[in-house]
Amino acid sequence: MEFSKLWLDYRKLADNRSRVIISCDKTLKDSAAFEELKIAMASMVPDAIVLWKSEVFDDDSCLIVLTIRPELSEEEYDIAASANITEICAGSETGLLYGVFAFLRKIALAGRFISFTAHKKPSQPIRMLNHWDEADGDIERGYSGKSFFFVNEELEVNERTVMYARLMASIGINGVVINNVNVRRKAKLLLSIEFAESLTNLGELFARYGIKLFICPDFAAPKTICGLDTADPLDENVIEWWNTTCALIFSKIKNLGGFLVKADSEGEPGPMAYGRTHADGANMLARAVKPYGGIVIWRCFVYNCTQDWRDKKTDRACASYDNFIGLDGQFDDNVYLQAKNGPVDFQIREPVHPLFGAMKNTNLIIEFQLAQEYTGQQKHVCWLIPMFKEIMEHHTRHDLPDDRVSRIVCGVAAVANTGDSYCWTGSELAAANLYGYGRLLFDEDVSCTELAEEWTRLMFGDDEKVTSAVKEILLDSKQAYEDYTVPLGIGWMCHPNDHYGPSPWGYEFDRWGTYNRADRDAVGVDRSASGSGYSEQYAPALADVYGDITKCPDELLLFFHRVPYTHRLHSGKTVIQHIYDTHFEGYAKAEHFAELWHGLEGKIDDRTFKNGCERFAEQLRCAKEWRDIINCFFHRLSGIDDENGREIY
Amino acid sequence: MEFSKLWLDYRKLADNRSRVIISCDKTLKDSAAFEELKIAMASMVPDAIVLWKSEVFDDDSCLIVLTIRPELSEEEYDIAASANITEICAGSETGLLYGVFAFLRKIALAGRFISFTAHKKPSQPIRMLNHWDEADGDIERGYSGKSFFFVNEELEVNERTVMYARLMASIGINGVVINNVNVRRKAKLLLSIEFAESLTNLGELFARYGIKLFICPDFAAPKTICGLDTADPLDENVIEWWNTTCALIFSKIKNLGGFLVKADSEGEPGPMAYGRTHADGANMLARAVKPYGGIVIWRCFVYNCTQDWRDKKTDRACASYDNFIGLDGQFDDNVYLQAKNGPVDFQIREPVHPLFGAMKNTNLIIEFQLAQEYTGQQKHVCWLIPMFKEIMEHHTRHDLPDDRVSRIVCGVAAVANTGDSYCWTGSELAAANLYGYGRLLFDEDVSCTELAEEWTRLMFGDDEKVTSAVKEILLDSKQAYEDYTVPLGIGWMCHPNDHYGPSPWGYEFDRWGTYNRADRDAVGVDRSASGSGYSEQYAPALADVYGDITKCPDELLLFFHRVPYTHRLHSGKTVIQHIYDTHFEGYAKAEHFAELWHGLEGKIDDRTFKNGCERFAEQLRCAKEWRDIINCFFHRLSGIDDENGREIY
Repeated sequence: MEFSKLWLDYRKLADNRSRVIISCDKTLKDSAAFEELKIAMASMVPDAIVLWKSEVFDDDSCLIVLTIRPELSEEEYDIAASANITEICAGSETGLLYGVFAFLRKIALAGRFISFTAHKKPSQPIRMLNHWDEADGDIERGYSGKSFFFVNEELEVNERTVMYARLMASIGINGVVINNVNVRRKAKLLLSIEFAESLTNLGELFARYGIKLFICPDFAAPKTICGLDTADPLDENVIEWWNTTCALIFSKIKNLGGFLVKADSEGEPGPMAYGRTHADGANMLARAVKPYGGIVIWRCFVYNCTQDWRDKKTDRACASYDNFIGLDGQFDDNVYLQAKNGPVDFQIREPVHPLFGAMKNTNLIIEFQLAQEYTGQQKHVCWLIPMFKEIMEHHTRHDLPDDRVSRIVCGVAAVANTGDSYCWTGSELAAANLYGYGRLLFDEDVSCTELAEEWTRLMFGDDEKVTSAVKEILLDSKQAYEDYTVPLGIGWMCHPNDHYGPSPWGYEFDRWGTYNRADRDAVGVDRSASGSGYSEQYAPALADVYGDITKCPDELLLFFHRVPYTHRLHSGKTVIQHIYDTHFEGYAKAEHFAELWHGLEGKIDDRTFKNGCERFAEQLRCAKEWRDIINCFFHRLSGIDDENGREIY
Repeated sequence: MEFSKLWLDYRKLADNRSRVIISCDKTLKDSAAFEELKIAMASMVPDAIVLWKSEVFDDDSCLIVLTIRPELSEEEYDIAASANITEICAGSETGLLYGVFAFLRKIALAGRFISFTAHKKPSQPIRMLNHWDEADGDIERGYSGKSFFFVNEELEVNERTVMYARLMASIGINGVVINNVNVRRKAKLLLSIEFAESLTNLGELFARYGIKLFICPDFAAPKTICGLDTADPLDENVIEWWNTTCALIFSKIKNLGGFLVKADSEGEPGPMAYGRTHADGANMLARAVKPYGGIVIWRCFVYNCTQDWRDKKTDRACASYDNFIGLDGQFDDNVYLQAKNGPVDFQIREPVHPLFGAMKNTNLIIEFQLAQEYTGQQKHVCWLIPMFKEIMEHHTRHDLPDDRVSRIVCGVAAVANTGDSYCWTGSELAAANLYGYGRLLFDEDVSCTELAEEWTRLMFGDDEKVTSAVKEILLDSKQAYEDYTVPLGIGWMCHPNDHYGPSPWGYEFDRWGTYNRADRDAVGVDRSASGSGYSEQYAPALADVYGDITKCPDELLLFFHRVPYTHRLHSGKTVIQHIYDTHFEGYAKAEHFAELWHGLEGKIDDRTFKNGCERFAEQLRCAKEWRDIINCFFHRLSGIDDENGREIY
């Protein structure tokens, strides 16, 4: 079991000490915060003795005081540091742990003990990771190896899980769903006695690191586990079974947070089969977990996945809103609806999901995807944090005191990009997504440039060339990917099934509701009021922008409108010329990234360097396919040549 | 192990007898011919006692005399039958078996003992089936269940294998390759001790039915089995290993015919890796099997399967000819080159392979495909026999005494369509392909109408409605499939990988060399002298036809030429209108087939009827997709409406 420490690979500081004294209440001596300090100090000041509450204190000592202060909220911390004395106060052990990680990050970046103050509480109260791990060890849409949670159909708690918990706590993740929302095969038994012991062990580990443990249960469990002939959420026996089961598992599993449920979606079971609503289903579960402080997170990813491509009236983009808007106010207060960031499915560019701000009387969680399903599968570098930040700061234009997504949601979740690969995320650079995600949720004010810089330096040290190159790669990577894949918001031009590489009409004549409708004259989907009406799901001020071809932002034009190739964008370019230009430019950017990376040989560890080289080679190969195939596709249709005479095959 | 008897399900005759006397030399009493007669008589005249050489003979008796006559060639038979006395003479036990099957077929169709004479020898000396069965039981491109040869990684000889041998002998198959040309996993050990006993048993069974047993060996076996560091066909140790191995296996396995080899093709090992030619590789093996009368069949399916789609100069159609034509005359006399019927890969319409007639000093075998890989996968009814017959009768226009393919080749092979499904071929109607194939090779003069009728009546009895409906379905099915899939010879508009259902650009930007090059103005590939030059691979008289847009037959136009959608065909229609018309008509034909089939309820056995209904339902669903997607595709590109105003989505 070989794995890297990622950004927790503490390096030696420039200033040395002979003693590090950690002063805290005896009860904190066993805390994760205390332990993390000891681990860090052993690497950062390797010559120092680390002591608890020593009497000796001189210039060669460093004193770190850990204090619980009840006036601070649970996850809040307050740090006052000088070169020799640091006080970290927090509202709980978890808050202390967050404070310790913040302190360690600060001195790691400074390279020495420094003076600073920091007082933070998380921007988002719920900060989750959703793992799509299967009990058999596969990971759905996983690009980083196999599951490290499930090995040989058993749930593991081991060195790697401990490292995982430390990494997650270091970026402030406080909730983890350990299994796939599609509950298959042995995962259907997660609520049964089969997994009781291992879940208990994992819950204990997670508790130590301030992480609530969540499970995706099989909604049909009353049938599959208990043998009832129904899973109807209003059936008395079903309710009774869930109540009893929850009483049992919550009594055993410390820090169990509750359930995440994908119901009536892409073939998963749900309440609709019994003529019940999503609210009926979610509330039934919510009542079963409520006595134990549990919550139920219910996904809004519900649409018709057997659409006839001939049917031009049905618009998948409308489905999630249409399915849930009528239920606003009907969910119990411990139910959270989890909507993806956009209305369709994690494309590189979508408008923000219209439920945010529209569903005023419902707890909402926004779901992002760190796993690069549609964004290069960790072979392409695609740092998604700028996109996440943009979405969180998006103004929904609903009539609210603060209409931004970040103020509307009660929490944030992301599909994890981890696996049992050495560097956890297949590519080291993909770990920047994981890091940035957690950090951003905890501290929304931190800029992407700051995040890119701090991650790069924590990962690779202080070489300026490395920092500058990696920062540039990260910061430009998402736009490059959007450029050479599918600009102007059209989406879904990837290969079906594996969602990798270009296939412009791979989804065009299929059942998934994901069409570009390109023909020799025009491209895009009319989702304005005169089209599918999707734009009307937004607040009037935004509906007016999206629905109007003259006001719609260029980057979403083909998502909302069908236009001729000669349509002129706000940028002044025609649609077809924009397509050609972005594809050539996007590929050129990818080439530049690879060059930057190759320049780092000898400056970063060899294993990481080589892994990156292999991945950049694949990114270039694939980006070239994207460039040439998408350009060729639109050239064959439009018959319009590139103004700059570049080769289109 | 449940399986049907297909066309060997002998029914009771209209005239009864009390005795059937089989008169033959004592040595023939254990022959398959004698046994088959006994099996058949027990069903056809169930009240009769079957005797050997009885003295009693009266009006109520039927005498069948079996005689070996040395003046007849081995597989030749001569029958003189009257209502009461039948003499079947042949050159060998195998010939007798063929005579017996011919006699039984005749009386089964007549429904009684009748007077007739028949004197036949097979039209083709080599009549083979190539099974693409894997040692683990899968069948590559199999649509009829799992392998019945390989079960749990063992080679089986059982009741089903015996029935298989009887079925094959009844249609005159005299060579069977039992494993896939792509030699994977445990099949690599077929030459080792691992399979020695079971191959010996199977060889014995096959010998009884006149079938030579063939194996696809791993060309790299000297490395994989023996542990040498090379498989170079000119290396002394390699030659020695093959010689020793062949001595061993030919001494053990009765009726071993030799090897079928796919070398240097789609990643399979071969001589090219060692800088040797196909002739070097084939001759080395041929010399190893020669002492035992063995032959080596070497496939010509060699092309670059990693082509860049941007490369418009390379033409896969040219590859097979280009790879082999220079080697004409260099192969030993027990080497047979096996070329597919067309230059690319079993599309519903291709020109005949240009090697036939061009390679004058080489033994050639033509390879067909019964497994409906590109032709509906046994879910669509597609009776391929009219196409096979057309190809066999095709005039190559080479300067030869008889320039037809049937006179040029030394034998015929076909990829089998069997598996462990109840009816052997997934769909009962697909068994007509297997039957027709064997019968056509044995007797090239039989017409498709006759074949359709005799198979239908042997399978389903004499109900006129059944015969008329099934005959009509079979005879029209291939044209219907061509119509609603890809008319005018364009091909490859299917889904990649599984080759089922429409995906007009699924292969367009991929590495397989299979492009339609459609754009808003034109479609098709210029393979004339001014294009890829492929047409020049034919004899001048034919090159002149194919290479000239005004002479090229309509059905191959888009294979050989790139034309605008408005190009007018010999038929008088434009290309685009032809596409629309054939797609609407093809689908209408499929609808008609389904109606005909539904009219047979109660007239054929229920199991067959239901299986057919399910498959016709799927054919209709899929044919509708073909119709609408291909029409939509070309409409989007061309912008030209259907003259008849039918709906194009």
